[in-house]
Amino acid sequence: GVNPDLANERQTASFSVEKLTAWLDGGAEQTQLRRAVVEAIERDPVFSRENQYFQSQNERYEAAVRKAVHLQKKMHEMGWSQDGPESKYIYRAVAGDIAFLLHRIFMRSISVLGSDEQIAKWIPPASQYQLIGSYAQTELGHGTYLQGLETTAVFDVTTQEFILNTPKISAMKWWPGDMGRSATHTVVFAQLYVHGKCYGIHPFIVQIRSLQDHSLCPGIIAGDIGPKMNFEHIDNGYLMLQNVRVPRENMLNKFCEVQPDGTYVRRGSQKINYFTMTSVRISLISGEAVTPLMKACTIAIRYSAVRRQSKLKPGEQEAKILDYQTQQEKLLPQLAAAYAFHFIDDYLQEMFDRGYREIQRKNFDTLPELHALSSGFKATVTQYCTSGVEICLRACGGHGYSLLSGLPSLYTKIIASCIYEGENTILLLQTARFLVKSFMAASTGQSVPPSVTYLAAVKPRKCPAKNKLDFLSPDIYTEAYQHMAVRLISSTAVKLQDLIQSGVKKHDAWNRCTVQLAQAAKAHCHYITVKNFAETVERLESKAGIQKIMKHLCDLFALHGIFSNAGVFMHDGYISGAQMDMVTASYLDLLAIIRKDAVPLVDAFDFTDKSLNSALGCYDGQVYQRLYEWARKSPTNKQISPAYEKYLKPLLHNTLSKL
Amino acid sequence: GVNPDLANERQTASFSVEKLTAWLDGGAEQTQLRRAVVEAIERDPVFSRENQYFQSQNERYEAAVRKAVHLQKKMHEMGWSQDGPESKYIYRAVAGDIAFLLHRIFMRSISVLGSDEQIAKWIPPASQYQLIGSYAQTELGHGTYLQGLETTAVFDVTTQEFILNTPKISAMKWWPGDMGRSATHTVVFAQLYVHGKCYGIHPFIVQIRSLQDHSLCPGIIAGDIGPKMNFEHIDNGYLMLQNVRVPRENMLNKFCEVQPDGTYVRRGSQKINYFTMTSVRISLISGEAVTPLMKACTIAIRYSAVRRQSKLKPGEQEAKILDYQTQQEKLLPQLAAAYAFHFIDDYLQEMFDRGYREIQRKNFDTLPELHALSSGFKATVTQYCTSGVEICLRACGGHGYSLLSGLPSLYTKIIASCIYEGENTILLLQTARFLVKSFMAASTGQSVPPSVTYLAAVKPRKCPAKNKLDFLSPDIYTEAYQHMAVRLISSTAVKLQDLIQSGVKKHDAWNRCTVQLAQAAKAHCHYITVKNFAETVERLESKAGIQKIMKHLCDLFALHGIFSNAGVFMHDGYISGAQMDMVTASYLDLLAIIRKDAVPLVDAFDFTDKSLNSALGCYDGQVYQRLYEWARKSPTNKQISPAYEKYLKPLLHNTLSKL
Repeated sequence: GVNPDLANERQTASFSVEKLTAWLDGGAEQTQLRRAVVEAIERDPVFSRENQYFQSQNERYEAAVRKAVHLQKKMHEMGWSQDGPESKYIYRAVAGDIAFLLHRIFMRSISVLGSDEQIAKWIPPASQYQLIGSYAQTELGHGTYLQGLETTAVFDVTTQEFILNTPKISAMKWWPGDMGRSATHTVVFAQLYVHGKCYGIHPFIVQIRSLQDHSLCPGIIAGDIGPKMNFEHIDNGYLMLQNVRVPRENMLNKFCEVQPDGTYVRRGSQKINYFTMTSVRISLISGEAVTPLMKACTIAIRYSAVRRQSKLKPGEQEAKILDYQTQQEKLLPQLAAAYAFHFIDDYLQEMFDRGYREIQRKNFDTLPELHALSSGFKATVTQYCTSGVEICLRACGGHGYSLLSGLPSLYTKIIASCIYEGENTILLLQTARFLVKSFMAASTGQSVPPSVTYLAAVKPRKCPAKNKLDFLSPDIYTEAYQHMAVRLISSTAVKLQDLIQSGVKKHDAWNRCTVQLAQAAKAHCHYITVKNFAETVERLESKAGIQKIMKHLCDLFALHGIFSNAGVFMHDGYISGAQMDMVTASYLDLLAIIRKDAVPLVDAFDFTDKSLNSALGCYDGQVYQRLYEWARKSPTNKQISPAYEKYLKPLLHNTLSKL
Repeated sequence: GVNPDLANERQTASFSVEKLTAWLDGGAEQTQLRRAVVEAIERDPVFSRENQYFQSQNERYEAAVRKAVHLQKKMHEMGWSQDGPESKYIYRAVAGDIAFLLHRIFMRSISVLGSDEQIAKWIPPASQYQLIGSYAQTELGHGTYLQGLETTAVFDVTTQEFILNTPKISAMKWWPGDMGRSATHTVVFAQLYVHGKCYGIHPFIVQIRSLQDHSLCPGIIAGDIGPKMNFEHIDNGYLMLQNVRVPRENMLNKFCEVQPDGTYVRRGSQKINYFTMTSVRISLISGEAVTPLMKACTIAIRYSAVRRQSKLKPGEQEAKILDYQTQQEKLLPQLAAAYAFHFIDDYLQEMFDRGYREIQRKNFDTLPELHALSSGFKATVTQYCTSGVEICLRACGGHGYSLLSGLPSLYTKIIASCIYEGENTILLLQTARFLVKSFMAASTGQSVPPSVTYLAAVKPRKCPAKNKLDFLSPDIYTEAYQHMAVRLISSTAVKLQDLIQSGVKKHDAWNRCTVQLAQAAKAHCHYITVKNFAETVERLESKAGIQKIMKHLCDLFALHGIFSNAGVFMHDGYISGAQMDMVTASYLDLLAIIRKDAVPLVDAFDFTDKSLNSALGCYDGQVYQRLYEWARKSPTNKQISPAYEKYLKPLLHNTLSKL
């Protein structure tokens, strides 16, 4: 049965959980489809994650391969296609715990960078897993800065081959997923040399393992890079190339080609590459950042409704920890953020789809804005969600620290999202470059993309709020965010210009402003998140039951941001000290209001117990029973440790005396 | 050889690293002793941590027991005694990776809570490991709130025994270290019942495993609680008691006793118990919080001096990432904090020693202050150091995410320090209670303990700084911190009073102020840290070479705190927007100054390569070579995965075609 402490949280919900779920999914049909996919996957024992927290890196890898292979069969059985409406739910259902994700990147890179002949040659066998691909870009000594890659590909005109080499240890490919133990092929990025001239980085398809017996091909040294904080199921690999020859046709040549005589030909626009990066960054926000935060909130909030600790009122039983203001202040802003970023994901998807349609019409105008937003939001959302998951973990005390809570794995995995697909600080600075440029353009009256038109309107005003209720007005707080973002962007742009005008070299001036530039980029994204949340709530007019609680969450998200970053709002006096007290009062009031719906609000995310894989977070709230049952299954209880015979027994017996 | 990029960082040190090390150690003789201990431990292969990152929980446990047993032998060989001057360095040398730490708590609890007869009976065999002890306080459903524990001990007057029981699952003992697989005995905390009356929580010595064959004693159900985020080497355990009988003499009875007829007698002051908690909290600050942060800084800063990424100036080679302002802004404030907290540890130790002397003279007056400071600093230092380690980890990009960097283990271990020995939020609120009380007393002219006398001097002033250089004056920033702490404490105390006067019940009013109370407690600790750092620098007069760089670090620590918490300094206009710009300017200037000495400043922590156990952090800076060598030793490269024969081969071969 359901723990009564959790059951009574559900009886008082101010809205229909099922309706909220359907709305979050984009309609009841989507909910139905999602549930069907999840159920089909979870019913299949091959996809079980039951013993995952007990497995070694080797066991995790084996399970991930087993699941990936089985998934092909499953999809065939179920009639699900690779790009069908089910696909996004499949990944959610397997919780990312599956191999061959890089194989998909391998295929995409060929589709995007390859010629029609190359696509025709490689994509059909790859889709059928006649080969397994990976994507070898990052090197041991080189990450984000692609021009710095050191792997070489020298064209040998006599044999019509490229000769690939790893000239030194820092040039070794490092990190590519699926490459350490699985892949037979990979796309290698290398500096192209023809007749002694370097033409920069190009992609080459290289076979690394035999299709017959999986042994390494001649000239290939490859293996697994060893233990990581998480992703034990993925065989991230290393790769060293020693005079590896590939035919001329293996350079992906949609945009440039080396002709038989060594003539280098460039063709078409490469802008679409840019677009790919954008698409990857947007696509990871939901699955890799927002979903884990939603799961962490579900676990921590359900647990906080059944965990009792100390007395809040003398004479009563111990209180639910969710009733403590400090616990609410830890968890509820994370819950609000999970919703805020779910809506930002919608916003970005829509913008991306619009941009994609334009690009197909060869109009690349939206690209800079899209690139700036995708970079900035990848950075801010992954950062926010990572610290949100950590807060949830800590808020569960000792039990949160047990792997069986599910929270440590969520954390150790999500933290990687701050690093991969563009390190967050670098991404923020890319956004900042766009913002500075847009600010300059806007202030000289030029037209700028829609998301930054607000930069033109620099008004040195004061916040008009007169009491704490005024701060529950979206206009009031959205404008505060806007004002703050404009101030940070404009003041940094001015500092940058001043430095340059005072004779500091451009690159040096830029470096000296980067701390503030990163802050400005975050402010921009924070503003857009708040604005988008408020607009989303407004559009909910027809759904009054949901609108009310969403409005509370929007208010909480906005006020939490002001409360936690008070300095940037007060800097020029836009918000006064007295007004900040009003913000604080409204913010704390909201905690008590939203607390009442906290459990229904996480129930609405609709995660199954299996997908949470948490002894603390299950729907029935039977946390202690489950912790005990799961702990007993631990391998540490399955064998008597050799430590007893080897060390403990001699220690105890050598000096054994009567007690 | 040493990587030239690291070597040249050392040539330009502005101070003598050896002298700074000696000063940090408390004198050159201490340095010598420390190095001798560390060398003796590290030379011994039994203590090797070489393969630690590849080990399973079972292997880690076995190694920890092996080390603990061997350490006894080693200490005997070396002539080191349990409480000798070497002891604090032994723990540092084994990096905490050792079993039987709870055995020491077991012994301490008997020494503190037991009668002379009990001490005479149990301590000698325990010191000789004729038994292995644990300490069973926390239950599955109960942590900090001791009164809530549910385990029962009923006195049976007919047999002169206590009958211990676990009445329900939430009453199961959960988490005690060394209990899951090793311990033969434990101190169990249980509700004492005599003749049907409950006398509250008392400690009982209970044997749980046979001294002959280590099997569980009758009525005992015990085991390991399973995988955790770290501490895999410790067998944290669970324990269920079913009518377990122990003789009357097994209740630790220094402070209270059940006489043969069931008469309950209380004697002496229990205040000393309070003092034990204080001592544990202070003692963990250095080893469990500051040392890991120092290690993380060493790893991240050395790596940042050899890692090159992108070009800072066009035409030059790629820049060291330590030359980027954003990287400096991540790492250097953490470095400054490591120093700040090292000095706070000195401050607390000294205060503790003073308090201890008083208590031995039966003067308990210093206890409330000591308790408040130890709670507050345990919370703030573990919290700060935990996020510092995380920042270091992220600042190393992908390689920081590899276990081989050493950073993930530091992080997953230090985060537990925010939870154990008192959950941080609860501790902050204990400090806040003391602060509110002190503020009330001070404002009515009563005398208050030394650390809070500043609360009496509430001056509604403005910061007198006129330019950015003024903010490099310790008087200026220390006063800003003081002002801010007074404001937060006083305004929250006033809010609390107002609520109570308006009719809100006391406990409810307290709960409604807890977010702000916790903030006030942090502000108090932050102020004392800055003040103590400034005073430490001042006392360095005779050591000019070191004083200069310590002054820079002190400035950086203080200004980073103002920059990052701008709102609380600006709230009442104490620091204006224009002044905040000066703070920012000085803060950013300091980053560039301290950057020059960053590597020597971490070298001064004097960690050996073995103690860092990091492929990124070694003294020679050969990071890529070492990452590669260590990765090759991974078990994932030692066996061909069964996944090939089972899944990959069938997948690839079923459809094998010529490519």
